Amino acid sequence: MSQSYKIGSSVTYEKIFNAQDVEIFAELSGDKNPVHLDEKYASGTRFKNRIVHGMLVSSLFSTIFGTLYPGEGTIYLGQTLKFLTPVYLGEKITARVTLSALRSDKPIGIFETTCSNEKGEIVVSGEATLLMP
Amino acid sequence: MSQSYKIGSSVTYEKIFNAQDVEIFAELSGDKNPVHLDEKYASGTRFKNRIVHGMLVSSLFSTIFGTLYPGEGTIYLGQTLKFLTPVYLGEKITARVTLSALRSDKPIGIFETTCSNEKGEIVVSGEATLLMP
Repeated sequence: MSQSYKIGSSVTYEKIFNAQDVEIFAELSGDKNPVHLDEKYASGTRFKNRIVHGMLVSSLFSTIFGTLYPGEGTIYLGQTLKFLTPVYLGEKITARVTLSALRSDKPIGIFETTCSNEKGEIVVSGEATLLMP
Repeated sequence: MSQSYKIGSSVTYEKIFNAQDVEIFAELSGDKNPVHLDEKYASGTRFKNRIVHGMLVSSLFSTIFGTLYPGEGTIYLGQTLKFLTPVYLGEKITARVTLSALRSDKPIGIFETTCSNEKGEIVVSGEATLLMP
């Protein structure tokens, strides 16, 4: 395994999900829950406004792993997710992955994973397990 | 909480992800790892062919929870995911959620979640935690 993996090293990726992103994801997944799509419906819920699908937000972890760090050749073995705070349309979300452990016997890395909003609130947290390239 | 939640009750949802779905998801998430997009690159990997993003496959759980069972008003609190077997373009994937426990003090349900391919292999497994409507 490469010596370039340092415990504690982290990489971030930013994304703003807009209404069109949420509509496309609703079509793609089939998750057309009106809290994501219908402003009037959403205004009557605890969320007050349309929210972004948690799984769409969480896909930013996959984006970092698959394209930035470790990148090509990475194999995604697992991910845990806690959806802590709703994500609204137009919010800038920062996904961060931090290498927290490397197995000594196999090229398996454990990453702490968070998505945060502009207020610094963690919106999604969890842990990823990867087979490192 | 409604009496209609029965431990062991399960709901399924089927979906075939095609090349266009994967390309749209790559744009949406930013995960443009060539194992998803580039047939020639994928042929040189252990997968041999292009594979569907694990997070896109896993979004089918959100689809069931948000639209079928429990449906509107459900709040997704958490999900664990193990990506066990690659999913190829054109494979019919069956997502299944099974209510495994209900908390007695709060309207919180725990669901066993799996996605399977046509050979009956489990491709994604995990557990979801929901605030029930």
